[in-house]
Amino acid sequence: MRILLDGMGGDNAPFEIIKGAVEATHEIKDEIIIIGIEDEINNELNKFKGKYNENQIKVVHASEVITNRDAPVKAIRTKKDSSMVKGLTMIKSGEGDLFISAGNSGALMAGSLFIIGRIQGIDRPAIATVYPIIGGKPSFLVDAGANAECKPTNLLEFATMGSIYMERVIGRSNPTVGLVNIGEEETKGSTLTKASYELLEKSRINFIGNVEARDVAYGVCDVIVCDGFVGNVILKLTEGLALNILRKLKQVFTDGPIAKIGAALLLPKMKELKSELDYKEYGGAPILGVKGAVIKMHGSSDAKCVRNSIIKGLPYANQNIVQIIQDAVEELEEIGISEQSGI
Amino acid sequence: MRILLDGMGGDNAPFEIIKGAVEATHEIKDEIIIIGIEDEINNELNKFKGKYNENQIKVVHASEVITNRDAPVKAIRTKKDSSMVKGLTMIKSGEGDLFISAGNSGALMAGSLFIIGRIQGIDRPAIATVYPIIGGKPSFLVDAGANAECKPTNLLEFATMGSIYMERVIGRSNPTVGLVNIGEEETKGSTLTKASYELLEKSRINFIGNVEARDVAYGVCDVIVCDGFVGNVILKLTEGLALNILRKLKQVFTDGPIAKIGAALLLPKMKELKSELDYKEYGGAPILGVKGAVIKMHGSSDAKCVRNSIIKGLPYANQNIVQIIQDAVEELEEIGISEQSGI
Repeated sequence: MRILLDGMGGDNAPFEIIKGAVEATHEIKDEIIIIGIEDEINNELNKFKGKYNENQIKVVHASEVITNRDAPVKAIRTKKDSSMVKGLTMIKSGEGDLFISAGNSGALMAGSLFIIGRIQGIDRPAIATVYPIIGGKPSFLVDAGANAECKPTNLLEFATMGSIYMERVIGRSNPTVGLVNIGEEETKGSTLTKASYELLEKSRINFIGNVEARDVAYGVCDVIVCDGFVGNVILKLTEGLALNILRKLKQVFTDGPIAKIGAALLLPKMKELKSELDYKEYGGAPILGVKGAVIKMHGSSDAKCVRNSIIKGLPYANQNIVQIIQDAVEELEEIGISEQSGI
Repeated sequence: MRILLDGMGGDNAPFEIIKGAVEATHEIKDEIIIIGIEDEINNELNKFKGKYNENQIKVVHASEVITNRDAPVKAIRTKKDSSMVKGLTMIKSGEGDLFISAGNSGALMAGSLFIIGRIQGIDRPAIATVYPIIGGKPSFLVDAGANAECKPTNLLEFATMGSIYMERVIGRSNPTVGLVNIGEEETKGSTLTKASYELLEKSRINFIGNVEARDVAYGVCDVIVCDGFVGNVILKLTEGLALNILRKLKQVFTDGPIAKIGAALLLPKMKELKSELDYKEYGGAPILGVKGAVIKMHGSSDAKCVRNSIIKGLPYANQNIVQIIQDAVEELEEIGISEQSGI
């Protein structure tokens, strides 16, 4: 496999991106192609001379950089020689098998749609992400924010793509799928959730019904399905709450000498809790539903995150997930689900 | 003020309800009228003989009980002699100033609409709730789940009613109002949030713009405005995550003798954290937008929660919040907001 890495995307580019790539080469044999301003990338790579197999990392020059301040669609249209546009174009042309970027999320989504294109039959590609569960196996959330407004068929697509990714890439067999709703009964919720429930029930995925947000926090299902607005709220609220509770704990733990002793005794255990909540452990977020394997990393990704995104994202390409999603869509059409779902 | 208390609603009725009422009489001088099966309530009340001023608590008989298994609308229509229907009817007729119930939420909402009726100009009454902020002052969330689907005008109503309640009942002057969205920029989000943003900006409330769920967890605004679907997700996810983190901490703290010593040293501080997350501290959730003061308590309310709901809910009645909301709606109409908001 040839992994294309956006050398210029994210808050810590290019150094942490390159460091992560170097670290990944210690664990995989695949080729990593770093795209970006050649001089800058080579300068950084030189710092690791002798610490990695030089045949395994290549650099492809791209003179422009898409930043977080750029308007997504405009950036994709005008910055033709940016690392992001170049990476996506190389996926399209088959010069690479997986593209990973910590850059502008909107631009990466727009670029994936415009340059690589949707899988036939998928109306709305989604961003999906591993959702950490404290004291349990992580779930997988689709859509995490790409589509603020959805139709029931979109949620069926999310559920199908999420199941496939969860099973083939994350390795959870026959994953359970839950629909986020404000009540467990079939008749609860909004027009969207009620109609989506009917579709999901008819599909071949392992649908367990509506799940309430309270139970999502406990890991009630493997794949969490919702529209991108709700998904984004779930993801960001979890992040905010976890950080806030950890901050409060830190304050509690350092408030006076007795508390400090108590905290010192608990330190190793607390590290375990913190690591369970750490998104860096889980790699990046795949864009699902486009005709190529693209992974979005957190904007503040460091080398550890880059390394994990490469290693954990590799099966997205080498398991041929795009083809499997394509086949599943055809299957959905065959069993008539798509026709019934127009709303 | 005459407080009407549903003696039969919730998992711990009637005992905890009555115990809470007795405890409340130690702090307020207002009359409490407990509605329910007379014999059962008097039996329980007798246990507190001599421990409260008997002139302060009265019992009104209601032969039927609405349970959580009852279909809300049907229950309100058929169980005419239930404690809930009787309480709402007494609010309507002016025989009581505040009705508090831990019973079937859907039935309480439906009953409030059918029996008491909406405030003129309010399209969608909402359930609002105090939202605990770790290490900060609590926020106030509207809508917490009554309306799964909303129009922009509904969100304007929620914001207006929430501001009034936050200022007059909870006592936060000139409260800031934030619109839950998946990005801070005015142009981000769904059709609903974009149109709601425009309305909120034109209103007289202290609108601070879009707020992301991450910042909601930190208490970024006093009043959190969103549709009932998103509000319910926020509320329940917070509950689930907080419980899950506390459970994990408990496990960490009891895992081996060294951890136990550490935990013992931290115990007083940890209690503080737990109490910040405890909904029982904050009283019940007001139904806003109906022509009477109605408060919903958590189904699992104990005496402490009942006591707090009575004491903290009292200003809902004695500050004449219903009239203030009515005046605000007229004001909104006068400044032409209502007309612009039809979508």
